[in-house]
Amino acid sequence: MKVREIQAFLEKFFPEVRCSGNAELDIVRPARIEEASVGCVTFIANAKYLRHLSLTHASLVIVAADVDPGPCSEHRAVLQVRDPYTAFVFILEQFQAPRRIADPGVARTAVVGRNVTLGANVTIGEYAVVGDGCRLGDDVMIAPHVVLMDDVQVGSGSTLYPQVVCYNGVRLGARVTIHSGTVIGPDGFGFAPQADGSYIKIPQTGIVEIGDDVEIGANTTIDRATMGSTVVEQGAKIDNLVQVAHNCRIGSNTVIASQAGISGSVSIGKGCMIGGQAGFAGHLSVADRTHIAAKAGILKSVTTPGQAMRGYPAQPMRTELRQEALIRNLGSMKARIDELEKELKSVTRNK
Amino acid sequence: MKVREIQAFLEKFFPEVRCSGNAELDIVRPARIEEASVGCVTFIANAKYLRHLSLTHASLVIVAADVDPGPCSEHRAVLQVRDPYTAFVFILEQFQAPRRIADPGVARTAVVGRNVTLGANVTIGEYAVVGDGCRLGDDVMIAPHVVLMDDVQVGSGSTLYPQVVCYNGVRLGARVTIHSGTVIGPDGFGFAPQADGSYIKIPQTGIVEIGDDVEIGANTTIDRATMGSTVVEQGAKIDNLVQVAHNCRIGSNTVIASQAGISGSVSIGKGCMIGGQAGFAGHLSVADRTHIAAKAGILKSVTTPGQAMRGYPAQPMRTELRQEALIRNLGSMKARIDELEKELKSVTRNK
Amino acid sequence: MKVREIQAFLEKFFPEVRCSGNAELDIVRPARIEEASVGCVTFIANAKYLRHLSLTHASLVIVAADVDPGPCSEHRAVLQVRDPYTAFVFILEQFQAPRRIADPGVARTAVVGRNVTLGANVTIGEYAVVGDGCRLGDDVMIAPHVVLMDDVQVGSGSTLYPQVVCYNGVRLGARVTIHSGTVIGPDGFGFAPQADGSYIKIPQTGIVEIGDDVEIGANTTIDRATMGSTVVEQGAKIDNLVQVAHNCRIGSNTVIASQAGISGSVSIGKGCMIGGQAGFAGHLSVADRTHIAAKAGILKSVTTPGQAMRGYPAQPMRTELRQEALIRNLGSMKARIDELEKELKSVTRNK
Repeated sequence: MKVREIQAFLEKFFPEVRCSGNAELDIVRPARIEEASVGCVTFIANAKYLRHLSLTHASLVIVAADVDPGPCSEHRAVLQVRDPYTAFVFILEQFQAPRRIADPGVARTAVVGRNVTLGANVTIGEYAVVGDGCRLGDDVMIAPHVVLMDDVQVGSGSTLYPQVVCYNGVRLGARVTIHSGTVIGPDGFGFAPQADGSYIKIPQTGIVEIGDDVEIGANTTIDRATMGSTVVEQGAKIDNLVQVAHNCRIGSNTVIASQAGISGSVSIGKGCMIGGQAGFAGHLSVADRTHIAAKAGILKSVTTPGQAMRGYPAQPMRTELRQEALIRNLGSMKARIDELEKELKSVTRNK
Repeated sequence: MKVREIQAFLEKFFPEVRCSGNAELDIVRPARIEEASVGCVTFIANAKYLRHLSLTHASLVIVAADVDPGPCSEHRAVLQVRDPYTAFVFILEQFQAPRRIADPGVARTAVVGRNVTLGANVTIGEYAVVGDGCRLGDDVMIAPHVVLMDDVQVGSGSTLYPQVVCYNGVRLGARVTIHSGTVIGPDGFGFAPQADGSYIKIPQTGIVEIGDDVEIGANTTIDRATMGSTVVEQGAKIDNLVQVAHNCRIGSNTVIASQAGISGSVSIGKGCMIGGQAGFAGHLSVADRTHIAAKAGILKSVTTPGQAMRGYPAQPMRTELRQEALIRNLGSMKARIDELEKELKSVTRNK
Repeated sequence: MKVREIQAFLEKFFPEVRCSGNAELDIVRPARIEEASVGCVTFIANAKYLRHLSLTHASLVIVAADVDPGPCSEHRAVLQVRDPYTAFVFILEQFQAPRRIADPGVARTAVVGRNVTLGANVTIGEYAVVGDGCRLGDDVMIAPHVVLMDDVQVGSGSTLYPQVVCYNGVRLGARVTIHSGTVIGPDGFGFAPQADGSYIKIPQTGIVEIGDDVEIGANTTIDRATMGSTVVEQGAKIDNLVQVAHNCRIGSNTVIASQAGISGSVSIGKGCMIGGQAGFAGHLSVADRTHIAAKAGILKSVTTPGQAMRGYPAQPMRTELRQEALIRNLGSMKARIDELEKELKSVTRNK
């Protein structure tokens, strides 16, 4: 692909794409700027990496519209767009070899249950099991070794990677992606304590609803509701090894990093960012656009939207950082108290 | 189901079930009190939610025996029992549609090894693999895509959901439930460091023993012992994504929430409650009925039974809460020291 | 096996193996010292457990070369070697029954794709799926229900337990062991934020490379790189439920305990030890031989090799322990400030 072809391609997405340097260079693969060599396209999204621009061997660099691209030799081109990061994503997609998940159609070894509805162009891979009453939309890709229990709905354009399990009644929206080993809809963790110390299982009669355009990583678990639905709203992104307990609601476009854990009946707003290994106590709610730092422990509701929270128990970022600084300073505080006591003693002694 | 039928059903479990209001109302489904509409049965277990009683549209509300049910219109009934939560669990079970996991019998595609013993009424789902020498009790339900390696024992009435793996020699008691993706009996994490910095694997020759009535969530891991057994005692409940390392013992009726991690050779007593994301250092023991808060880090043994522990390193709840309050107050402590220094300086200067 | 046979066997690995007591005793199984009975072999690696030597019923005890084995009755023997722990590991291996994972050869129900290369003595278990273009070395063991997507390479002598998934392009070295439920190579968690609050998925075009002699536990996830490779170097050992994000590099012989989480583009040095539930912020590097305590939160790079780190934010062990002690002492610090204020008030009042 030549630089001028990449420029033309990007012009489909961006109002203005300016080119400096040699537009005839051949570009053969994308690369990170540290690793880019001749023939590579790379990008600089953050102004602090602009110093790399003169050092990289990349043949093409995508930078922001408001940056000085500097002089370009005949071995270098620069394309300028409003959002170089997203532009690079589009370029990556162009260079990406498509990933074969299963051969088209329903594999001979797939087990498809009674009263199953399949849309157009559905793929079901080797040894996949699709339970009774399932409804799969158009262009759904079910990888080998996926298990859908009864009455699962999968919206059109969704992809389930090998060894995903959906329990009965789970509903996935359109263009949902779920990576391997993730389990959607196992029983919520609910047991009624009895007088003798034992527990009676509380039937988990609800379901899980996953909205359109949600992506869920590998080995994550999302429990079904006790009654009603556990909900992941449209556009949310959930990483690997995350726990979402029964009756939670995860807001639209909220992003949850790996190993975070959301206890039962928690409601997280829209557009939030949840750091890795963060944890939430049960039955609380978090306002829209909240940023939760990695490892934070949220023990009460966050009611003001747009705050950053950190620590255990979590508090607003600024309060927490000030507190952490005070803690690091405890040694000097202790020394000042020692000194005060000494001085005061000398004052009282001298009286 | 009419209210009076639900009353009659509950009288099988509770000595006294008092009914106020219209016993002829038709009840069609259970619901949480916030969502209950006409035809719903719901419950109030906690006195602080009693204010909902006058607001809900539920046709039937289960409350405690010692509560004033207030006036009931002809569109409402109230049943009073000793334990409304457990009563509601029994009602939920009545309304729950049974979950089909696999068709009865041994699926044609299941692979059953040599010298396998099957009890009466065993179900083995599509593509399940049962290794040599396995012994499955009566009424065992093996879901599609379960793998049992050799010499696994499964007690009667147990259910293994799709894609559970049990390594060789694992022993499950009666009425054990294991959710999808959970792995029982992989090798413990043991390596002997060598002089050149590399490691030699320590053979993990032990097994895992799971007691009767244990329920284990999805994507949890319970390692086999190096020698002897890793043990989960009768009635324990373990949530999703929990790690139980080699040679641990989890006491009877202990409840472990999601993402908790128990290091090697830890012994946890009976009737404990372990919060989510809590962690335990190796080789320690925890007394019966200990409550561990979420995210706590237990670094030494807890010897007094019945304590609540919190924090990192964990300490008794009251000590920890006092300490957390002192930390939140560090800013004012620093201000007081500033002030003391200023005043003392003025005292000494004035002398 | 007689004591003198075990002595002869150990002499293959150690320059000197001294025997005291009855070399003709029959040894039937290995056991931990607390549980050892007649006929057992056990070991004492740590001098502080030497008091057990006189109490154990074990017939054979392996101890260090520089220890006084004490008097041996005719019912007891002691073998002395330089490294009793490693010696015991070798003995364990002798007594370990081999674990059957699948019958030799390629199972009739295994699905093997196009252009697959199989080495000598490859085993592929029931229902395993091996994608197009995969290359498996000699003596590779693929358990039942493993899924290899296209173009996966598995080095000779490697073992993949049931329900491991390797995404397309993953490369495993020689003698790699991966336990059940682990997913190698799912997409890294990368999304480009858009002006309307939604996200565009960043194609994850890279791969994962796992070095020789790596062992990975159950239900762990190792994401593929956005571009280039996520790398686990030779000899590293990774426990259950660990997250390794895209573009990480884990150094040779580094050990990572359960539930640790490594964010994107983190580089961890060689010979490190990472505690359970530890977490790493993205894009940082950790020097060789760093020890990270369990639950630590590493928020910036660790540049000095060989340090121990602990806490959140993590700091060198000594600093952190001093700080934790100061925190535990906050109550007394506050009392001293109270007292100072009182005394100072009395001083100023008396003036």
